[in-house]
Amino acid sequence: MTQKGLFNKINGNFKNKDIVSLRQFDTKSIYKLFKVTKKMADIAKHAKSSNILKGNIVTLLFYEPSSRTFGSFAAAAKQLSGHTIEIINPTDFSSVSKGETFEDTIRVFEAYCDLIVLRHPEKGAAQKAAEIAKFVPVINAGDGIGEHPTQALLDLYTIYQKFGKLNNLTGLFAGDLLNGRTVKSLLRGLSLFSNNIAYLLSPKQLKLSREDFDDFKKSGLKLIEIENKKDIPKNANFWYWTRTQKERFKNKKNYEEVKNKFIVTKKVLQDFGNKDMILMHPLPRVGEILPEVDGDKRAVYLTSEIRNGMYIRMALLSLVLGKIK
Amino acid sequence: MTQKGLFNKINGNFKNKDIVSLRQFDTKSIYKLFKVTKKMADIAKHAKSSNILKGNIVTLLFYEPSSRTFGSFAAAAKQLSGHTIEIINPTDFSSVSKGETFEDTIRVFEAYCDLIVLRHPEKGAAQKAAEIAKFVPVINAGDGIGEHPTQALLDLYTIYQKFGKLNNLTGLFAGDLLNGRTVKSLLRGLSLFSNNIAYLLSPKQLKLSREDFDDFKKSGLKLIEIENKKDIPKNANFWYWTRTQKERFKNKKNYEEVKNKFIVTKKVLQDFGNKDMILMHPLPRVGEILPEVDGDKRAVYLTSEIRNGMYIRMALLSLVLGKIK
Amino acid sequence: MTQKGLFNKINGNFKNKDIVSLRQFDTKSIYKLFKVTKKMADIAKHAKSSNILKGNIVTLLFYEPSSRTFGSFAAAAKQLSGHTIEIINPTDFSSVSKGETFEDTIRVFEAYCDLIVLRHPEKGAAQKAAEIAKFVPVINAGDGIGEHPTQALLDLYTIYQKFGKLNNLTGLFAGDLLNGRTVKSLLRGLSLFSNNIAYLLSPKQLKLSREDFDDFKKSGLKLIEIENKKDIPKNANFWYWTRTQKERFKNKKNYEEVKNKFIVTKKVLQDFGNKDMILMHPLPRVGEILPEVDGDKRAVYLTSEIRNGMYIRMALLSLVLGKIK
Repeated sequence: MTQKGLFNKINGNFKNKDIVSLRQFDTKSIYKLFKVTKKMADIAKHAKSSNILKGNIVTLLFYEPSSRTFGSFAAAAKQLSGHTIEIINPTDFSSVSKGETFEDTIRVFEAYCDLIVLRHPEKGAAQKAAEIAKFVPVINAGDGIGEHPTQALLDLYTIYQKFGKLNNLTGLFAGDLLNGRTVKSLLRGLSLFSNNIAYLLSPKQLKLSREDFDDFKKSGLKLIEIENKKDIPKNANFWYWTRTQKERFKNKKNYEEVKNKFIVTKKVLQDFGNKDMILMHPLPRVGEILPEVDGDKRAVYLTSEIRNGMYIRMALLSLVLGKIK
Repeated sequence: MTQKGLFNKINGNFKNKDIVSLRQFDTKSIYKLFKVTKKMADIAKHAKSSNILKGNIVTLLFYEPSSRTFGSFAAAAKQLSGHTIEIINPTDFSSVSKGETFEDTIRVFEAYCDLIVLRHPEKGAAQKAAEIAKFVPVINAGDGIGEHPTQALLDLYTIYQKFGKLNNLTGLFAGDLLNGRTVKSLLRGLSLFSNNIAYLLSPKQLKLSREDFDDFKKSGLKLIEIENKKDIPKNANFWYWTRTQKERFKNKKNYEEVKNKFIVTKKVLQDFGNKDMILMHPLPRVGEILPEVDGDKRAVYLTSEIRNGMYIRMALLSLVLGKIK
Repeated sequence: MTQKGLFNKINGNFKNKDIVSLRQFDTKSIYKLFKVTKKMADIAKHAKSSNILKGNIVTLLFYEPSSRTFGSFAAAAKQLSGHTIEIINPTDFSSVSKGETFEDTIRVFEAYCDLIVLRHPEKGAAQKAAEIAKFVPVINAGDGIGEHPTQALLDLYTIYQKFGKLNNLTGLFAGDLLNGRTVKSLLRGLSLFSNNIAYLLSPKQLKLSREDFDDFKKSGLKLIEIENKKDIPKNANFWYWTRTQKERFKNKKNYEEVKNKFIVTKKVLQDFGNKDMILMHPLPRVGEILPEVDGDKRAVYLTSEIRNGMYIRMALLSLVLGKIK
């Protein structure tokens, strides 16, 4: 084992890098990742038996359960014949409950494996783990209100897959833009590319914060806040729909008022959508897109978004472990 | 991926079929399954390293824990070099606890794998999952008071293995015949074949329901209700013993009265059994067969029944995934 | 499957033996194990893809969670391409919660696999499981206040790896020597070899019991009780440091008094250690070795001890399953 590089920019070279934040990525690295992701999709679709990760052990260390992300990483490793060590809720396990520190737990598990995938409820945990682990890279599978970079990357890839580009795009972001971790990560991703426009549709209480708004604007992304579905641009390439959580509203009357304005129905899609767009959602959804829409071929949240999540993770595991260049 | 066929009769062709109920099986399909099961037993016994499921991913989605069925399916997949994604109690996982529907969960997991094995506490859940899953087949690993088809199949196979046939057999069913899911499934299986006789021995409170009794009778199975061990036929090929659960009795005095009548001891086996029979139990047992009987070579509940469960599941996985014809 | 040999002495032949206690080992068996362990280290370090356990299924049956031991055994099996069936907290699972006995659970799981690794909170559980299992060997992964033989073996191996021998060594044992399961196992291991000296440093309340003291003395180990760090021998080959648990003290004032005397700091290591020693700890630690010491090259508790644990388990699995002679 050789000491790994510290957490840093990817610059087109993923080998032994920690994947903690979308901030590590430049456009070149994203395109490289997507090229490998496309290969992975081919492997998975044709059910070729791939040995790319044969002999590699990936620890899935989940301090909070997340069936979708867990299943996606597990499937990604196994599609490539990699092994997994699966630890869910280690705080219920004896060592941690006896008072073992996060540091010691990370040090112990890095001795058993080639890579750690970490899910943690606290912002900053992935960065911390990346600094602690001396020999193996760490991939962030979501750290609380922090980041969830593989979710943002699969969203970007889904758009890229449909339109063959990541610039000159117009997107609609709807729902809770104040708290939504995935919204902000995707906006950050789009801001790396030129001439993108994001329409922002949300209840007043859940608008993008002034700070975030200014940040993204500075980075070159064109942001347009709208208040009504009628203002959705007819030429949007994608809608990125998210939950408006009841618990975010102090005044429940306000919630009831806005709730129905933020539901996608067949009629909404027909009245305000266009033929070539895609309808995305980071899941889980709890009613904000009606099941009647699921069968529409523009609805990709239960189809290509899910599959792309697995392909992106297959690509990241292979690149970070140095099995693909 | 190609769209799978809808849940339906097997008719000798298992590929891409959901396995939800024993009602899907005819005698031809059962014999075909058993032929493959025998091959699987050979593979497992000789510890040959089989690659039949190499490259396949099976999701074990268990909405309630069941160590035996879970272990059996996991072992079945791994005996053939298949991979598993293991999700136990997804309702504790964040997506589902955030309110994700059963539909969305099934759609998500089918994107990660080639086949879903579902355990669920609610009757009808397996059928529902089979209808939701668009691309991958679903195998029912028990849905509440509904069905548990692989248990019934392993019971049938155990009888078939011993006697080389599934017709012209005489069996004794004892214990709780009113509520026992496995009893009814096995009776259904036997009713597909000709000239079988089932003696039914149970407390009055736990007799087979009139409806079930008439149903099985109509299908050609000969049913004989008895009230005393003395009436057990001397030529029974098998005894299928089950638990009489205390909680089924409103009157605890009644329970105490019948309890001891339904315990298999060495003496009971000697007085009322015969040399060539087998003694079966679907497990778990909690006292209704005494450990002193375990060493008897007729007792198969902890030996061939358990192993046959794994072989049946190996066969089903291989057939449904189209790896064996 | 052939019936396995009963639990007994190893005498240089591990195949099909249960590994329940360090008492089964003689020096010859330990040296043989260490020779194989060294090979395993080479396999793991060079990330060669080994197929030594290909086709084998190992059940990890953990009646209490232990992330480190669980992860170590899982990694050991997977490093050698073995499969695992992972059952954590089976008492929450339906069969066991319905009242299934420990006997039946062991009989069921041995039908699915080639070897059972058992973790259990009750002393004697591993021995019991070894007696129940008729066909597959059982490895003890810790049974309450009983034994944890693979921990003792990894400790011995860590010392052997450093000094190339297991005799003529001087060690310091510090902390809770009354209750520490690992301390006593390691002392037992050292007592098999000649001319070893153990210095024992502990609070009065946590001294080695008179019974243990006399036992080890009889077996040829030289024991020297000391009360002060100043009495630590300058030529110690290793320090084996353990936790002094607050809950062991009836009088909390006594605890506060002794607590600080049993913390390893940089200064303590500088004042009382020597250049060639190693500093060991069975983990988890909760403050008794300060993190400032972790970077010292003599500190092996987060490095070679952890890795050696995986190598020892790789070796044991291979030997017991008869894949290496």
